[in-house]
Amino acid sequence: MQNMTPIQRLSRTFRDNSSLAKTLIIFTVGGGGFVAFSDAKSDDGISIVNPSEADDKNKKKRVVVLGTGWAGTSFLKNLKDPSYDVQVISPRNFFAFTPLLPSVTVGTVEARSIVEPIRNIVRKKNVNVHYWEAECYRIDAKNKKVYCRSNLAGDPNQIEEIVVDYDYLVVSVGARSNTFNIPGVAENCHFLKEIEDAQKIRRKIVDCFERASLPNLSDEERKKILHFVVVGGGPTGVEFAAELHDYVTEDLVKLYPKVKDAVKITLLEATDHILNMFDKRITTFAEEKFQRDGIDLKTGAMVVKVTDKEISTKQVKNGGEISNMPYGMVVWSTGIGTRPVIMEFMKQVGQGNRRVLATDEWLRVEGTSDIYALGDCATINQRKVMENGISLPISLPDFELRSCILSTALVSVLVLYLKYHILACTEIEEDIWAIFQKADKDDSKTLTVKEFQETLKDICERYPQVELYLKNKQLSSLVDLLKDSKGDSAKESVEVNLEEFKAALSQVDSQMKNLPATAQVAAQQGSYLADCFNRMEYCEENPEGPLRFRGEGRHRFRPFRYKHLGQFAPLGGEQTAAQLPGDWVSIGHSTQWLWYSVYASKLVSWRTRALVISDWGRRFIFGRDSSGM
Amino acid sequence: MQNMTPIQRLSRTFRDNSSLAKTLIIFTVGGGGFVAFSDAKSDDGISIVNPSEADDKNKKKRVVVLGTGWAGTSFLKNLKDPSYDVQVISPRNFFAFTPLLPSVTVGTVEARSIVEPIRNIVRKKNVNVHYWEAECYRIDAKNKKVYCRSNLAGDPNQIEEIVVDYDYLVVSVGARSNTFNIPGVAENCHFLKEIEDAQKIRRKIVDCFERASLPNLSDEERKKILHFVVVGGGPTGVEFAAELHDYVTEDLVKLYPKVKDAVKITLLEATDHILNMFDKRITTFAEEKFQRDGIDLKTGAMVVKVTDKEISTKQVKNGGEISNMPYGMVVWSTGIGTRPVIMEFMKQVGQGNRRVLATDEWLRVEGTSDIYALGDCATINQRKVMENGISLPISLPDFELRSCILSTALVSVLVLYLKYHILACTEIEEDIWAIFQKADKDDSKTLTVKEFQETLKDICERYPQVELYLKNKQLSSLVDLLKDSKGDSAKESVEVNLEEFKAALSQVDSQMKNLPATAQVAAQQGSYLADCFNRMEYCEENPEGPLRFRGEGRHRFRPFRYKHLGQFAPLGGEQTAAQLPGDWVSIGHSTQWLWYSVYASKLVSWRTRALVISDWGRRFIFGRDSSGM
Repeated sequence: MQNMTPIQRLSRTFRDNSSLAKTLIIFTVGGGGFVAFSDAKSDDGISIVNPSEADDKNKKKRVVVLGTGWAGTSFLKNLKDPSYDVQVISPRNFFAFTPLLPSVTVGTVEARSIVEPIRNIVRKKNVNVHYWEAECYRIDAKNKKVYCRSNLAGDPNQIEEIVVDYDYLVVSVGARSNTFNIPGVAENCHFLKEIEDAQKIRRKIVDCFERASLPNLSDEERKKILHFVVVGGGPTGVEFAAELHDYVTEDLVKLYPKVKDAVKITLLEATDHILNMFDKRITTFAEEKFQRDGIDLKTGAMVVKVTDKEISTKQVKNGGEISNMPYGMVVWSTGIGTRPVIMEFMKQVGQGNRRVLATDEWLRVEGTSDIYALGDCATINQRKVMENGISLPISLPDFELRSCILSTALVSVLVLYLKYHILACTEIEEDIWAIFQKADKDDSKTLTVKEFQETLKDICERYPQVELYLKNKQLSSLVDLLKDSKGDSAKESVEVNLEEFKAALSQVDSQMKNLPATAQVAAQQGSYLADCFNRMEYCEENPEGPLRFRGEGRHRFRPFRYKHLGQFAPLGGEQTAAQLPGDWVSIGHSTQWLWYSVYASKLVSWRTRALVISDWGRRFIFGRDSSGM
Repeated sequence: MQNMTPIQRLSRTFRDNSSLAKTLIIFTVGGGGFVAFSDAKSDDGISIVNPSEADDKNKKKRVVVLGTGWAGTSFLKNLKDPSYDVQVISPRNFFAFTPLLPSVTVGTVEARSIVEPIRNIVRKKNVNVHYWEAECYRIDAKNKKVYCRSNLAGDPNQIEEIVVDYDYLVVSVGARSNTFNIPGVAENCHFLKEIEDAQKIRRKIVDCFERASLPNLSDEERKKILHFVVVGGGPTGVEFAAELHDYVTEDLVKLYPKVKDAVKITLLEATDHILNMFDKRITTFAEEKFQRDGIDLKTGAMVVKVTDKEISTKQVKNGGEISNMPYGMVVWSTGIGTRPVIMEFMKQVGQGNRRVLATDEWLRVEGTSDIYALGDCATINQRKVMENGISLPISLPDFELRSCILSTALVSVLVLYLKYHILACTEIEEDIWAIFQKADKDDSKTLTVKEFQETLKDICERYPQVELYLKNKQLSSLVDLLKDSKGDSAKESVEVNLEEFKAALSQVDSQMKNLPATAQVAAQQGSYLADCFNRMEYCEENPEGPLRFRGEGRHRFRPFRYKHLGQFAPLGGEQTAAQLPGDWVSIGHSTQWLWYSVYASKLVSWRTRALVISDWGRRFIFGRDSSGM
């Protein structure tokens, strides 16, 4: 907010002076939209949702935010420019600190300790933010409207239909649990995405123990009821299995001594290892710990069917043998899928044959101009250096695609850099061609290393894969090469063996990954987008993004860049593994304390912070509660 | 446990020495029942629920407790004699501190802070206590069995049927909310008896505020949605209305500033005043405070119908005018009714035309020998001094009946005391006749004041109404009379004007009441009964109860006597009214602190105590949470 435009200043003046605001309301009553969303004290104004098109210049830009998860909330928390009217629509009127969901399933932390009403988060801001508890079921990108439904009366005859206009739409509706259409999963499994999921699991665990304690049961039935199956060896599944094991051994055995020997926890993972996005040391430690704890770890086992009594798995290797296990409860935590509202929206914007909604590096949905998507509901489709100017509808998994882009891009940069001296202009349509034209400032049709260096910052900003690649250890020789060339015109003509270079690049392909679907990514995206919105008008006049290689001038904003701050994998028994930036791995009790500190500090408010810390303290002193409520 | 019988001592030895206990298990394996309910580590024994009739003498007495409310839990907490095998059956595996339920409805206290797993309460005892999460649907008094059902799998096809034998049955299933069969109440109103009720109300309040905040609503609709109606001006209804008012004014107005003026709270009471079981000063203070707070208090208004949109009331006086009010939420808190399982049981034991299950003063169900009933599911049918030896099936309200008993009884005592010198023995069949026979130790057919004084203690113990009456201020002359007569034979022939005395008695009739359906009564009953069970064998040989006036010897135990320790009525705004013993009334902020102290001290465990206190602290600092979860 250092540089406010006159309109912003005017707007702020009105915010700060309510009587002035009221006067303005009287004058702009014809505009509708402004009146509808202002802080006026009257009760009568809210019914105008679709204002007329008049007074377009005077009214504030309407920003509609869908969802109150990590991305949406982070956007709202960081939005500071009072020149927007913000409408938040979400079926949950609170933000939930989801990394603590596995703790909620067993009562290490209470559900209410990790939630904060969204109205509380936004109410102290000087930005007009309004919230409606409703679920968006259709986005109409053409007419700039969202269609929502609210069923707060709990009566299908009293559903409220709401249609809202927007100038900018921020889509942060998150994802759904992915059942991969495996039969019986949706009907018989518990998921672990929402607060209610965690609460249901908590009740179910106690119910299983109570059921197993009833008389007239055979040993076999008792064992079946107390067989807890966790599907998915990712961080959530592993943490849940560990939390459940602690709950059973630390608390439930004392209250259910007769059935404790019948308890079994099975963790199913389709690949060869659990936590395979982590360092191998962590994976090994976790697998060994689980073995010591008696958690039955079944890797290479793919679930093929779930009935109300049994779960069927197929061995991925060794002939695909199918085995059935009776169970008491299954928790499904295998990954995320796209929500129906997003799938329908993707068809509208020409992304119908994609699996995930794609945005550009500024989080703008591809194929639209005023719709942004962030968090788990979208992925960034990183611009390729070899881009043909047409966004390809691709159905390949993004993972493979990205790796491919990176290697091709870098090879291209260098190939062209070296070849440019020799070759005449050929019919190259890729971005790389435009880059060279921009870099070749003296229009000499030859590119010196010095010229290339001058454009490098823009290239790295526009195509972060280049920088990532340059930073990669295995390419230190390339970095050295570029460093050496700075101010040293003698090395301008250094040549590189391209075949050797290609071979080296092909090895790092597998290291390229999409941004993970984590709270960290979503939160950074929300904060990034809010920052763009805060400086929209300023940056319109003073663009600070990289050079437009294909067009004139610069991009308004720097593209979104994710800063990985590390990831935790709690393993139970007061031990946690952490993979921190710079390949630093830390495992054990001290890491658990690091985990406590980081999570406590990241909580959204002082209230939740105090509650979670007191929950932890209570657990240390009194154990976890097992009332079946 | 000062005086343990040899069997008790032996039993305790076994409890304290687990290897000895195991040996015993091997020897008594034929007994079944004992093995089934013992702490043996094997998994295989629990299926025997109906043991054979053999080994009757060796096996422990089976006590089945139905319910884990105040009465049942208090019984379990105080039961110390290890010579029983106790089986607890309840659909709730936890005890809930119900006096804090109104606080839970608005989040002043969290639901989980006021519950304690029943297994936790009983596990440290040296008594064999087992718990099954099931609901009793039939008591078979003739065959000494209870029939229960458990639906822990949440699947109607997987309901477990359990039949349990008992030697003693303790019925403490509580009551249900009474709808008085008013149409629409069950379908459209919220109740406030169970933890889930409070949680539902909490969600509903937030839902109403969210719904009222939606666009496209008229002022009228908004006002309807935010109209909260509380039916019943008893302590629960009043406390809920006060808590709701605080929640709205202290917390919700900040988050929902636009709709705050549409909020209305209405309290409906059929009689002329709220809190009419309290002192008039409290009633007046509460009514005036509610008026200041803007709570719309409608007395003399009887609910006649509730639809999904409107509640219809009828003025009790002034022509019975009927008026309809649209509402957003109705909380129904008018009193309690008998549960179906108890109604069916009453028919079995010849109490079919009563409204409430009746027990004698030792909490034994009338018409049975081994079934005890306590708490809200039963009332004590106090033995009348004019009792004819037949327990009358009465359908009159107990209230009127008791008052009637008292006055008649005391008039009778004195009438007879004075007349005995003059009249010959007539055909009097009432208890009073037996009392006189016992009191007349020299069989002189005349009763001196000295003889009467010697029997007075037994009379007061057997018929507590006599003592209550003697203690009553308005009868100080009678007390003086009796005091004066001690050791002063000159006053033996004092005569009293009986007509004047009768007139005085008729005035105090209205002061006699049934024991209230409160936690205090239930807890004292549970503790009393446990004490009887603890000393059953000792008291069998050394009876310590009052003289059996109609039979030989003494009753085993003293009858149950309720000690009223006072009652609170929180009125919101950090003000509470309290009516303490000795007609001491205290109202205001200091009483609120007394309330905090008393409730904190009464909580069932250190865990709940710590949680509730931290909840209060959290509310002071951060306010109440309004996440709609």
